[in-house]
Formats: sequence, C-alpha cells, structure tokens
Amino acid sequence: MILNDADILALDTRFRAHFINSLGGFKSLVLVGTAHPDGSVNLATFSSLFHLGANPAVCGIIIRPSKPSRNTIDNILSTRQYTLNHVRPTFYQQAHQCSAKYEAGVSEFAEVGLTEKYMDGIEAPFVAESHIQFACEFVQKIDIELNGTTLIIGKIIKVIVPDDCVQSDGFIDLEKAETLTCSGLDSYHSTKKIHRLAYAKPDTAPSILENP
Amino acid sequence: MILNDADILALDTRFRAHFINSLGGFKSLVLVGTAHPDGSVNLATFSSLFHLGANPAVCGIIIRPSKPSRNTIDNILSTRQYTLNHVRPTFYQQAHQCSAKYEAGVSEFAEVGLTEKYMDGIEAPFVAESHIQFACEFVQKIDIELNGTTLIIGKIIKVIVPDDCVQSDGFIDLEKAETLTCSGLDSYHSTKKIHRLAYAKPDTAPSILENP
Repeated sequence: MILNDADILALDTRFRAHFINSLGGFKSLVLVGTAHPDGSVNLATFSSLFHLGANPAVCGIIIRPSKPSRNTIDNILSTRQYTLNHVRPTFYQQAHQCSAKYEAGVSEFAEVGLTEKYMDGIEAPFVAESHIQFACEFVQKIDIELNGTTLIIGKIIKVIVPDDCVQSDGFIDLEKAETLTCSGLDSYHSTKKIHRLAYAKPDTAPSILENP
Repeated sequence: MILNDADILALDTRFRAHFINSLGGFKSLVLVGTAHPDGSVNLATFSSLFHLGANPAVCGIIIRPSKPSRNTIDNILSTRQYTLNHVRPTFYQQAHQCSAKYEAGVSEFAEVGLTEKYMDGIEAPFVAESHIQFACEFVQKIDIELNGTTLIIGKIIKVIVPDDCVQSDGFIDLEKAETLTCSGLDSYHSTKKIHRLAYAKPDTAPSILENP
C-alpha cells in the first residue's frame, strides 16, 4: 500500500486516526498522575513521552487539545508537578480505561481501581501498582499552533526503580520491571530483548554487549 | 532505588545517560534518511519519534546538538524532506551502527550495508530493507533552549506499508511488519501483542477488541 499526501487526506477519519497513530512504531506507555489545587486527582494514559536529555534530566509529553487532556495540563500548570508511571500486564486494561473521557474532578484512580501513592515533596499521585515511577517538575510549555497540541517539558526530580532492575552501567531492565509498550490507539505489547549492542564507532563492526 | 533531584545530578555521567535514557520506557526506533543538496546521503538512528496528530498527519523528532545529528538537521533544512524507516531484526545491528559518528558526506548506507531506495517526488532516500517506510515534509523547527536540542515537526506526505499489515480499521500490525522497539541507548527488543482494547468510555468496563 502506497499513499501520497492526497490519499492520506482522503482517508476516513477513524481509519486515518488508527493508521497514522500506528505508523510511528512502538511507543512509550505511561500513566500521568496530577493533582488539582482543590485536592482532586487525575490519571491519564499517554503514549507521547520522549527523552529530551540526561543532563539536566528532562523529558517531554504532548498534550492533545481535547477536554480530558486539558484536565492534565491545567493541573500541571497549577501545581507544577506530575508523575509518570510505567504500565504492567496486571493493570493494562485499567491503564487503557484512564483514556475514557471522565469529567474534571472525577478520580480515574477510583474509577478504574488503581492505588494512589504519595512521596515526600511531590504533591501529584504516583501509581502504586507501577514498578517504575518518576516525577517531573514543570519547566516549559510550548504551544504547537499547527494543530493545537501542547508540548510540556519537565525536569525529572524523583525516580523510583526496583534495585534489581538497574544494571551496573545504569541501564534499566524494563522487561524485569514488566514495563509494556503500546502501538496505535489501543494495542498493548510485552517485549523480548534481542541484545544490547556496544557503543557504535566508525570503522568498528557492531558487536553484542556482554555482561554490561 | 529512590533518587531525588540531587541524587540524579550526582550520578556518574555515563551511568546517568543510560539510566535516564532507559527511564522513559520503550521507544519508537526509526532510521531517518536525508539528502544533501550536493547529492550525498545520510542515515541516522532515532528513538525520539512521536505522534503529533492524524489530521493533518504530523509527527515530531528531537535532534541532539552533537555533530553527526547536525548533518541530519542541515539536510532537512536544505531539502525540506526526510524519510523514516522502521527497523527489522535482520538489520538492527546495521541500524545501531548508523549512530556512529561518521563524518559529514560519508554515506551510512554504504558504511553499514543498507540499500537506498527512491520514490517519485521524494529526494531523501528510503531504506529498502524496511517494511514500513514513510516520508515527511519539513513544517517547523522549534529550538529547545534548555539543552540545545531541536524539535523538527514534519507532515507525512508518503507512506509505504505492506497490504497484509493494515487491518480493516486502519490499525497497522507492526509485529507482522517485524518492527522492533528499543530501550535505553543500545537495547533492541521484539514485541508480543497482548490485546487491542475497545475504545474506552466512562461507565463501561474495558473489553478486548475482537476481529477489528
């Protein structure tokens, strides 16, 4: 199947949504936890998390202009903090359910049956069921005028990872932590490691990293 | 392991790079193909691709300030086009090798042994070995001053996907296309689908999508 610009425009809206959302490959899957100044909490499914830098440790998420996503952004701009929580097979259906359009003020934790967890200095709720959890402090908002989405940049200020998932060189074994990935709008996948590879250099053949 | 802001800052630089790059979960893995106006070509490994919208069909990539990444951005700004190509198990080591710091003007296709493929109207090279390939037209550059990275936004103007990987509702079966995912700086993974789930609605329990 070969599609040009005009073919993509001519696709049925729902078909195009599934198609274009699948096209980018496998995605990071996280639940973003936020708090409203009135004490209510929100938990939202995101597949747009990306790495921005390790020093300072910063990452980005894209927030859509639709109403439930605005709850997340309003909370982040009010409280300047949010948590990001990996999804495990035991609760991927609850994670998906967090993408439903609940009204502002409704707690997705309560609705889907996940557990709020709090840590010193972080007002936003973590997901207790996640094995890898981290929190960000709001740094910058960039409005993408092209389609009304918003890039939120955050500085990573707290990380919780099981000790036995961290290798000696800092690499986190996501499979040991049971982290899932997703594709398209609704597909959930576990992974199987092929190999880690040694740092690539010109004039050196690729090689498998042994006992890192 | 619980790390705070100051603990993250105090990590060894290489440890922190592996750790923070792993923390975001599994990532989209693509090879970005570009052409220089002088006719030379470039192929670079990216793990920062993210979906921005389906209508118009747009996506983003983050380009690091380091020198080899500048070859990609210079080419994109000169020719206004680039290709994105999924990675299969048969050539993931070559894909990794494209992250080596080759000099400007050196073709990673030739160095690592991948095949350039050209399509009408697209000056940038596709990777013939990829089962899923698409091309973008440059739309916008956003400089992220915080750490010198650059967000490149592109409009998807051509897509090549095997017919038998596209389901009736537009979902692309990435596993059938042998698309891999990556984690950290150097780890490559295949995936296994758990389930697709039905569109989530408040007051409706999550359910598995049958025969979409």
